[in-house]
Amino acid sequence: MVVSYLPSQTPSGVSRLREEELVTLRGDGIGKRKVFERIYDYDVYNDLGEADSNNDDAKRPVLGGKELPYPRRCKTGRPRSKKDPLSETRSTFVYVPRDEAFSEVKSVAFSGNTVYSVLHAVVPALESVVTDPNLGFPHFPAIDSLFNVGVDLPGLGDKKSGLFNVVPRLIKAISDTRKDVLLFESPQLVQRDKFSWFRDVEFARQTLAGLNPYSIRLVTEWPLRSKLDPKVYGPPESEITKELIEKEIGNYMTVEQAVQQKKLFILDYHDLLLPYVNKVNELKGSVLYGSRTIFFLTPQGTLKPLAIELTRPPVDDKPQWKEVYSPNDWNATGAWLWKLAKAHVLSHDSGYHQLVSHWLRTHCCTEPYIIASNRQLSAMHPIYRLLHPHFRYTMEINALAREALINANGVIESSFFPGKYAIELSSIAYGAEWRFDQEALPQNLISRGLAVEDPNEPHGLKLAIEDYPFANDGLVLWDILKQWVTNYVNHYYPQTNLIESDKELQAWWSEIKNVGHGDKRNEPWWPELKTPNDLIGIITTIVWVTSGHHAAVNFGQYSYAGYFPNRPTVARSKMPTEDPTAEEWEWFMNKPEEALLRCFPSQIQATKVMAILDVLSNHSPDEEYIGEKIEPYWAEDPVINAAFEVFSGKLKELEGIIDARNNDSKLSNRNGAGVMPYELLKPYSEPGVTGKGVPYSISI
Amino acid sequence: MVVSYLPSQTPSGVSRLREEELVTLRGDGIGKRKVFERIYDYDVYNDLGEADSNNDDAKRPVLGGKELPYPRRCKTGRPRSKKDPLSETRSTFVYVPRDEAFSEVKSVAFSGNTVYSVLHAVVPALESVVTDPNLGFPHFPAIDSLFNVGVDLPGLGDKKSGLFNVVPRLIKAISDTRKDVLLFESPQLVQRDKFSWFRDVEFARQTLAGLNPYSIRLVTEWPLRSKLDPKVYGPPESEITKELIEKEIGNYMTVEQAVQQKKLFILDYHDLLLPYVNKVNELKGSVLYGSRTIFFLTPQGTLKPLAIELTRPPVDDKPQWKEVYSPNDWNATGAWLWKLAKAHVLSHDSGYHQLVSHWLRTHCCTEPYIIASNRQLSAMHPIYRLLHPHFRYTMEINALAREALINANGVIESSFFPGKYAIELSSIAYGAEWRFDQEALPQNLISRGLAVEDPNEPHGLKLAIEDYPFANDGLVLWDILKQWVTNYVNHYYPQTNLIESDKELQAWWSEIKNVGHGDKRNEPWWPELKTPNDLIGIITTIVWVTSGHHAAVNFGQYSYAGYFPNRPTVARSKMPTEDPTAEEWEWFMNKPEEALLRCFPSQIQATKVMAILDVLSNHSPDEEYIGEKIEPYWAEDPVINAAFEVFSGKLKELEGIIDARNNDSKLSNRNGAGVMPYELLKPYSEPGVTGKGVPYSISI
Repeated sequence: MVVSYLPSQTPSGVSRLREEELVTLRGDGIGKRKVFERIYDYDVYNDLGEADSNNDDAKRPVLGGKELPYPRRCKTGRPRSKKDPLSETRSTFVYVPRDEAFSEVKSVAFSGNTVYSVLHAVVPALESVVTDPNLGFPHFPAIDSLFNVGVDLPGLGDKKSGLFNVVPRLIKAISDTRKDVLLFESPQLVQRDKFSWFRDVEFARQTLAGLNPYSIRLVTEWPLRSKLDPKVYGPPESEITKELIEKEIGNYMTVEQAVQQKKLFILDYHDLLLPYVNKVNELKGSVLYGSRTIFFLTPQGTLKPLAIELTRPPVDDKPQWKEVYSPNDWNATGAWLWKLAKAHVLSHDSGYHQLVSHWLRTHCCTEPYIIASNRQLSAMHPIYRLLHPHFRYTMEINALAREALINANGVIESSFFPGKYAIELSSIAYGAEWRFDQEALPQNLISRGLAVEDPNEPHGLKLAIEDYPFANDGLVLWDILKQWVTNYVNHYYPQTNLIESDKELQAWWSEIKNVGHGDKRNEPWWPELKTPNDLIGIITTIVWVTSGHHAAVNFGQYSYAGYFPNRPTVARSKMPTEDPTAEEWEWFMNKPEEALLRCFPSQIQATKVMAILDVLSNHSPDEEYIGEKIEPYWAEDPVINAAFEVFSGKLKELEGIIDARNNDSKLSNRNGAGVMPYELLKPYSEPGVTGKGVPYSISI
Repeated sequence: MVVSYLPSQTPSGVSRLREEELVTLRGDGIGKRKVFERIYDYDVYNDLGEADSNNDDAKRPVLGGKELPYPRRCKTGRPRSKKDPLSETRSTFVYVPRDEAFSEVKSVAFSGNTVYSVLHAVVPALESVVTDPNLGFPHFPAIDSLFNVGVDLPGLGDKKSGLFNVVPRLIKAISDTRKDVLLFESPQLVQRDKFSWFRDVEFARQTLAGLNPYSIRLVTEWPLRSKLDPKVYGPPESEITKELIEKEIGNYMTVEQAVQQKKLFILDYHDLLLPYVNKVNELKGSVLYGSRTIFFLTPQGTLKPLAIELTRPPVDDKPQWKEVYSPNDWNATGAWLWKLAKAHVLSHDSGYHQLVSHWLRTHCCTEPYIIASNRQLSAMHPIYRLLHPHFRYTMEINALAREALINANGVIESSFFPGKYAIELSSIAYGAEWRFDQEALPQNLISRGLAVEDPNEPHGLKLAIEDYPFANDGLVLWDILKQWVTNYVNHYYPQTNLIESDKELQAWWSEIKNVGHGDKRNEPWWPELKTPNDLIGIITTIVWVTSGHHAAVNFGQYSYAGYFPNRPTVARSKMPTEDPTAEEWEWFMNKPEEALLRCFPSQIQATKVMAILDVLSNHSPDEEYIGEKIEPYWAEDPVINAAFEVFSGKLKELEGIIDARNNDSKLSNRNGAGVMPYELLKPYSEPGVTGKGVPYSISI
């Protein structure tokens, strides 16, 4: 094995080879990439729609560029569409460089194979059984039956025997009836507490210890106001009044005091979603509002929801509509309206989670780092070698996603609230929200008001919510990663000037900023890369995103969202209070439970998503967890080997820290009767859907 | 038909016959009554236990007398027990005077026959199938399955065909599987809203519009204090503090202001139950506490529970234990503890309802009125004729209850929290709480602080809770009954002195006070009977009890309690916070849903009660509703005939008043999304379990 070398230190005998290899990997940008090639190049997302289709519903705008900024993907070089020369034609073969391909892996239980099987066999089989795409669940026992009776799947055909092997959790042969059924495992949330999804205390807890701990923000200004153009979107003032908040917090303090003392928090899906409301509402089967949900930090350290505001902008001849719901409108009608408003908010959070916190910020934003690393860093570059395990299989899983998950009318579009605008929405979020510097966990917490710098506190941060399980565990993991990266970087860059003189490294960083994330190239917040500390910050951010961040938003998906009433992906009906006819209102009053079921995802939406979430949440038997096994080229160097031992030991220590926290009855956001412990950042896991385990890379 | 005559006005030709007939009906008090006899006489409740049994568990104290005061029952004159000369031996034949017997009625669907069938065929069949009396439901779907899969009942044998006819709602022959199953209808509460039982807003609403609207009281003093002996029961001070209440009501006002402004209400099962706690806890399978539940009257006019206090007196070497639970202990453990505390309180309310509000105050207290009426009022006495339809079949149903429902180890004892102390507890409540004068609805409301006299208000009462469906509808019904009784009484007693000179009437009232309710004979509150108004008050009270009061607490039983999680009859496990071992606490934290299921009634308890409640809630096709058909001897007199027309018309008007109220969205305690309308005092109903209809008499 070749020792790691900085470019300037490369033995002269291999120096030319090193450069030539990189030239080869960059390719010449021309032609359709073939299965055996190794070329890493960039392209925009212009392959999600079917530009040549006669069906306008299958066309999608190009993502990447000024209008709809987006990270770049791996270039496949397929022919351009005839009708739209900006778009690429689609194919069931999606090129990835040979070294990135799953096909190298033998195990049938390998993550990529399970996702492939669900997308290509289970989903079509489901669609052939549940033929009415709008059919909802008739009652709650019908939802329960997914976990004990299952869905008959007669249409599996010759894919059958393979499926039994690849996704044995999902597909069962019921031998005595000779039936093949899709049978879901009962998600951990439901196993521990069948009723937690119904409770506000759990709704609030999941903003801190759930699947999407990245959306909750501190309220820093009062009153709440939209920044959108009032001429288009109507009055910007929120109707969540001072009086309402003060009543809901039991006149414990004034709103001004609550803001000043950092007691109010918000899930703010107002300005992001409002521009899409009328567009989405024109589609069939989804009803969208902008939403604001306000929480109060109770003296027990838990969050308590106070109010939900749903907003529809002016449409046709109708003015803006907005309404505030509160859990304390103390009667049955109020309780049901609150429940329905929560279903809308949960669908927003569910979509934001999948499209932004998960897809955009981990899978999609990481692909340019991988491409740049392969194009600009030699395989013998120490930073290439540091990053390499963190990039495994990501390009392949992303290619699979473009082919069959986030494509036009794919599972994401057909099941999440934005419909055909789903991926476009992630582009809007990329443009409006994404900053490389704030992908670092500490800066992310600071940016949301959840932490301030404080050198006297652990991790140098004072948290606004002390018992914030994602942040508590994440910061320990962040520090462990950072210490490892620090030891590694300082070993290879003993002098500051080595950074600026490392041409490969500089080219790498330049390409990330100017090409891979080129739509953001002019942003002022890009970190400089002049010192080892700059590099440590950049690398730690990247490896945090591929390990901790991704694990936190991915491996709990089935546990939390597998029982979809806890996290519906779409709200299919309007609030009963929005301009109802007399009949609509009476129906709601007589059948509120049916109203909720009709608002929830349809049967096909729910079951497709459940099947996908199940495999996405699954660790394959050959999963590679951070710090578990040392990479051969790390082990060669005694300094790195020692640093790795520390790294590995710290991660095992983190296991114990997390277990202890989950056993601490003072930490109500992760400990309590029927509460799922927060284990998403525990580094290690057995195979399966375990709700824990932090792999190096985004391989699923 | 003989015209009605006051005794003094009886034509001399029949005067002696009139007296002789009464002598015959009174009997001589000697010997065992036989099936063909017509004798009405009194005895104490000394036939519930099996005094000659070798099993001490089957022995019960005599109810009636100084120690355990009780109304009298019809004397059957069976031989006394050998071991206990105070007790009567039991028999499957329980004498009632011939004119009271169901056997006169041909219809198989007659109420008494359905109750008989359930007690004598369905309950034993269930007991033969569910052999472990302590087996709880393993999960919630197992409860749901009672309503769609049912319970196989292979043991019906030769009773089968009869049962299909008598209780067709309950027993179904599943023809394609040749199985006989007990299949429950989904109760109205669940049909309208599967989740309402889980909500505090519904828990509170049911104190005003549920099955037991007779327990909620105004809080008039603060702090709360027990009146029991502290030496025996420990510190009397409640731990529900001023601070807790003020926090829970959002510092909306002080406790003192809340008490003064009549905003605090209580379900107080503390002093009544505490003396039984240690005794009950020695039995297997029931865990009892004293309980206090405090509610706040919200500005919306609904009640909101603030706190539950559970108390166990000192026992063995342990001091008094008490704990306060609140719905706002904002974390999952708090939410589950609150839910479990609610289950305990609901079992108290459920037992109190069945034993006191229902059995004692309607069935049991009415029997002496019937006996006295038959012994002291001639069948041609106008008051006998006024009361007669209100007394139909009551003695027979009570006899059936003594034989197989409230007897030692009968359904009530085996399924309700007090176990073998169940009927004894109703004796304690009779001694401590029952007052004839406060059985009148207006006085009852006043006694609980729910109303004060106010001549400017409708019905002369100002209600503390304006939207109190039972009181709102009940007072209209009370006034209608009173107007009818007034017209009737004034017609037969045009002069005041006729009351005092009516020897039969005076003997009747004297016997009710001194014999039938003789354990209360020295109470100062017995109304005098000197004027027509006195008589009107007494008669209206009696007919209200047999009609409105009984209907309000009986015909909604299946609708509200058929889904037993909404009203468990027993709590089978202690609170997890009462001196738990480490294992107990951990088990609760891991399996709170199982903890709730283990606390709920066992399978056999739940299903037996459900079957009984189903038939008790049922109107037979020949049900006799108030004011529907005129009695022949009323119709004969044109003045009474006219008064009856008014009575009947007013009752039909009440149907409309109640429908309008249930449609009024301002009345949140009876109108709302998924809320069961309050129809228990609607006078008329189709046959079946309808949750409405007010029969004249307690015939089930």
